[in-house]
Amino acid sequence: MPDFSSPLESFHAVIPAGGAGTRLWPLSRASRPKFLLDLDGSGRSLLQQTWDRLVDLIPPERIHIVTGAAHADAIRAQLPELSSLFVEPSPRDSMPAIGLAAAVIGARDPSAVIGSFAADHVIDDQVSFAEAVGQAVAVARTGLVTTIGITPTGPSTAFGYIESGDLLDVVDATSARAVATFVEKPEADIAAAYVASGSYSWNGGMFVTRTDVLLKHLARLQPTLHAGLAAIAGAWDTSARQDVLDSTWPSLTKIAIDHAIAEPVSLEGGMAVVPGAFTWDDVGDFAALQDIGAASSPETVWIDADGLAIAEDGTTIAVVGLHDVVVVRTPDALLVTTRDQAQRVKDVVAALKDRGRTDLV
Amino acid sequence: MPDFSSPLESFHAVIPAGGAGTRLWPLSRASRPKFLLDLDGSGRSLLQQTWDRLVDLIPPERIHIVTGAAHADAIRAQLPELSSLFVEPSPRDSMPAIGLAAAVIGARDPSAVIGSFAADHVIDDQVSFAEAVGQAVAVARTGLVTTIGITPTGPSTAFGYIESGDLLDVVDATSARAVATFVEKPEADIAAAYVASGSYSWNGGMFVTRTDVLLKHLARLQPTLHAGLAAIAGAWDTSARQDVLDSTWPSLTKIAIDHAIAEPVSLEGGMAVVPGAFTWDDVGDFAALQDIGAASSPETVWIDADGLAIAEDGTTIAVVGLHDVVVVRTPDALLVTTRDQAQRVKDVVAALKDRGRTDLV
Repeated sequence: MPDFSSPLESFHAVIPAGGAGTRLWPLSRASRPKFLLDLDGSGRSLLQQTWDRLVDLIPPERIHIVTGAAHADAIRAQLPELSSLFVEPSPRDSMPAIGLAAAVIGARDPSAVIGSFAADHVIDDQVSFAEAVGQAVAVARTGLVTTIGITPTGPSTAFGYIESGDLLDVVDATSARAVATFVEKPEADIAAAYVASGSYSWNGGMFVTRTDVLLKHLARLQPTLHAGLAAIAGAWDTSARQDVLDSTWPSLTKIAIDHAIAEPVSLEGGMAVVPGAFTWDDVGDFAALQDIGAASSPETVWIDADGLAIAEDGTTIAVVGLHDVVVVRTPDALLVTTRDQAQRVKDVVAALKDRGRTDLV
Repeated sequence: MPDFSSPLESFHAVIPAGGAGTRLWPLSRASRPKFLLDLDGSGRSLLQQTWDRLVDLIPPERIHIVTGAAHADAIRAQLPELSSLFVEPSPRDSMPAIGLAAAVIGARDPSAVIGSFAADHVIDDQVSFAEAVGQAVAVARTGLVTTIGITPTGPSTAFGYIESGDLLDVVDATSARAVATFVEKPEADIAAAYVASGSYSWNGGMFVTRTDVLLKHLARLQPTLHAGLAAIAGAWDTSARQDVLDSTWPSLTKIAIDHAIAEPVSLEGGMAVVPGAFTWDDVGDFAALQDIGAASSPETVWIDADGLAIAEDGTTIAVVGLHDVVVVRTPDALLVTTRDQAQRVKDVVAALKDRGRTDLV
């Protein structure tokens, strides 16, 4: 029996680092994804901030990042302490990424518990974050796949929700409850009802689970994917790693962990949720970026105007007679929109792709 | 008695080329004024287009430009045929500029008629323009100071108006009327009444007059200014020109020709107006710039949006969910506003001056 006298003993963090963040164009690009950017002016990229939160809890060698080949060098440059980088031959969504890490970590340490944390979210209040992770690990050791449900600060329609069920009885995780169901981004009136009920939290995509539990669920629910990951993991610590990876990876089912595991397992009563009382945001668009404290360029001239105006190239922006505007200037592009239209910025990226302007996306 | 068998014999054009055009910031700057810019995408600057209109009527040596020292080289570069450039030591508004040219031209040719034409207006329909100038010269020879009143195409509140009085009886200028009065930019309802009446035309600042008539009015109405200009003109074609110019110019009364001559002389019955049926605009702001046909950069991505988007540096602009927007990007600055706020762009220039950003204005 392993010794769990230290609560986070054998706990590993897995950071899937992918996704361009097309709603933050032109700041974020395929070649310069959101997680590599210092979006809040803190001096640290979102990925570095994620690392900082985790390295406060566990040693660097237990923090694993899964990313595409295009970003491996940039990630290594931003995180010199990083020792475990899984490089995917191609993007297959979050389940193959997390599943690969789980299979490799579990083969090395059968008692391991892993937690997945997005590379491009912001979290404030490290004490609450550490408390939630500690509870989630305690629950996960009992065999439940556990998520951290973020306490809503308002009826957001930008996030998915988790409905809590019965209180569980886990030592060191007295707030843990069963997950009743996961729900997709709701309409405004439904979101308001969720928040008013007190039974719903935001789904921040943080899943904590024993590797053996995860892999058993995967073997049942996605057997083909499980077999592929098992083959790759079996070769991982051998000289055959790259050959098996290259031959097997492209055939893996492209699916998110939410759909592959969280939703079906919650219906079977196998998911738990612990509360996260910290401030959290997935920085999904420029309105969110402003809300997390991103500041306009200090040179900006506002004449009867307000909003967010960023000149990445240090030039001077002037806005006249427009409110809640969003202006983002890079050396090669410029976005002009408003806070309430910010979700549609992804349409610009789609339009540029249609025009063959891959240099700009 | 001079021979006026050619209607434009002894007719000289004077182009005062000054004014930064602060409502067109950041395209126009103190160092790169509106008249030097190709604002309508025609391939010719506004000054070059003014030159083209006049050189179609009279030989280049009878076209005179008055400008500040800062722009002399740029003007010579744009107009290689130009032979007569008056360089002002400092800006003293339009009356000293036109008065100096009148005094020098009149000293050389006592029968001269001059017409003043702004360097930064656009006019379409050269045939109508030539017709109006021909009528104005014919009226001016009778001793009246004559202006060309532009037939309004709508109740603009951006221009001053000229009220016409009685029909005059001038051979070769059968449409000429006395000027009843000049009025400043009106409110919208008053402008609508003006246009409905049929008695009002727009004041395009085009004044045509015998030099001796102009100088006699000036001697009466602005004797100090007249004396200064007479001293400079007397030395102009001598080696003392620069000395007298430098010592006398700074003391000249700073006043526009409208206030020094046109308004008081109209009250005395000494002003005439001939109709100008051409399309005219002073390109006063970005709304006007769009109206005269300036096009958005072809690369612009419009997502549920429209307006004018100019990227002088060739980069790609994307606008999402904003209508009648104005976006102007230069290498060092960016303006975001709307058509109906376009007049307030001058406030940006004022704010930048307040901040000491003379590099940007």
